[in-house]
Amino acid sequence: MFDLKTYLRDQRTKVNEALQRYTTSACAGSRLHDAVTYTLMAQGKRLRPVLCLATCTLVGGCEQDAMPAACALEMIHTYSLIHDDLPALDDDDLRRGRPTCHKAFDEATAILAGDALLTLAFDILSLDRQDLSGKLVRRRLDVIALVSRAAGCKGMIEGQAQDLAFEGRVIDEQTLRQMHQLKTGALISAAVASGAVMAGAGEEQLASLSVYARKIGLAFQVVDDILNVLGNTEQLGKAVGTDQARRKNTYPALLGLAGAQQYARDLVDGALQALTGFDNKAEPLRALARYTIERQR
Amino acid sequence: MFDLKTYLRDQRTKVNEALQRYTTSACAGSRLHDAVTYTLMAQGKRLRPVLCLATCTLVGGCEQDAMPAACALEMIHTYSLIHDDLPALDDDDLRRGRPTCHKAFDEATAILAGDALLTLAFDILSLDRQDLSGKLVRRRLDVIALVSRAAGCKGMIEGQAQDLAFEGRVIDEQTLRQMHQLKTGALISAAVASGAVMAGAGEEQLASLSVYARKIGLAFQVVDDILNVLGNTEQLGKAVGTDQARRKNTYPALLGLAGAQQYARDLVDGALQALTGFDNKAEPLRALARYTIERQR
Repeated sequence: MFDLKTYLRDQRTKVNEALQRYTTSACAGSRLHDAVTYTLMAQGKRLRPVLCLATCTLVGGCEQDAMPAACALEMIHTYSLIHDDLPALDDDDLRRGRPTCHKAFDEATAILAGDALLTLAFDILSLDRQDLSGKLVRRRLDVIALVSRAAGCKGMIEGQAQDLAFEGRVIDEQTLRQMHQLKTGALISAAVASGAVMAGAGEEQLASLSVYARKIGLAFQVVDDILNVLGNTEQLGKAVGTDQARRKNTYPALLGLAGAQQYARDLVDGALQALTGFDNKAEPLRALARYTIERQR
Repeated sequence: MFDLKTYLRDQRTKVNEALQRYTTSACAGSRLHDAVTYTLMAQGKRLRPVLCLATCTLVGGCEQDAMPAACALEMIHTYSLIHDDLPALDDDDLRRGRPTCHKAFDEATAILAGDALLTLAFDILSLDRQDLSGKLVRRRLDVIALVSRAAGCKGMIEGQAQDLAFEGRVIDEQTLRQMHQLKTGALISAAVASGAVMAGAGEEQLASLSVYARKIGLAFQVVDDILNVLGNTEQLGKAVGTDQARRKNTYPALLGLAGAQQYARDLVDGALQALTGFDNKAEPLRALARYTIERQR
């Protein structure tokens, strides 16, 4: 029997150790390092690295080959949180159960810490390259291509820009879905894809995994919106009720609470459907799909 | 006879065309694209790309192989200007002869445009990889390693953090030199190194070129400080006298104006000295070294 709780604990421990190692060797001893690790090492779900490592293993790869990509994705996710929380953007005070980076340090340091994390992600993706075979060097460059595209101005950053532009404006469901596909979906898809690429997945596998990733990415966002209505601050580690206050476009606002919950369940069913071609080595990915809607934070 | 003026005009044209092509294909049609190109395509010296291409040619490489690195470096330089100009950092209103990005757009857009440019740099360094030989794929990954390190929290970003931390404090010349080596020197060195790496330079060549780059990088900064005292806003495209107003540590403040000018000349002599092993194919690099102190902007 696959036990998600144990699995998540073990995988998070491995990821946290690697993140600690990478940030220490990159910039230990500076104030920037303190600001970087303050947000990066706070309790996070580590969804992107866990998905990346699980996919790599599923396709028959060695988990260690995907660890740089796993950590790079968590760094990019964290930098986006630090910048999104800034006064000029979402102006949030609480993140991962602590004051946001610009509250704990200052705005200039938060901007630079975000920049440092984004840069460090690509530093890590080019580490230890002398020891890599030609095949793995090429896969690393493939991962850099898909991660930079997912994080860039046709991906996450464009999603963030649209989210700001749409505040206070009523948009339809398709526009909302596209915005989320960019803002959070693209990086979650990159997590699954980069794990698959590092393991040398074939085109058919990549196609199924891409459907899986797109569906759980969206489910994850729908549940985030629901938790912003129903959750509690202590469990979530961030403020609730903020979407309504900022007149953000959300799934509960658009579909009603019950409608949003049903939509999330349908998405997870679709994600599981996409995995039917895989054997029981896909249990972690199946359990992670269910987890996206069962989580309380 | 080598004519720097013609050379710079031709090289800048090539670089500008490539930058235009990369940004159009990355994100044309969005507000982010407007903010990105607003600062990127404004008149810039293109020092880093020109150095990168010149070094590649000097070592016997094909200029086109170094163009992605050349453009990535200009994007990273430009993102650093956009973020440095923000109210929380240097709070500057004028850059490259125009209102700064956050003045022309807004603060949120400027933060995201900077993030987009930094991300795009690595996107470009992984472009067209299917068409590259194994040798060039490996060199691209080498360039990603050296560029991300130069731009990161043991390079440019740490230099920026130190510059902010030192404001209003008196520091000695060694500390000032180390700060500039990080803030501007590291990326200028990366420009020379990445051109050399793409051309497959040997260790001895890399060592000489690294001395050259370190010296002109520092000379460039010393002259920047001098121009902040002596220059005029119209020619420079940015405000003058701002260093003194912000109580920044500068070379004229530390060595006096004549002392700073002599120091810049000595650095350029040292840079030229480092090139004695190269034949007349090094004329562009020699002329660029002299240009760092003769320029009026």
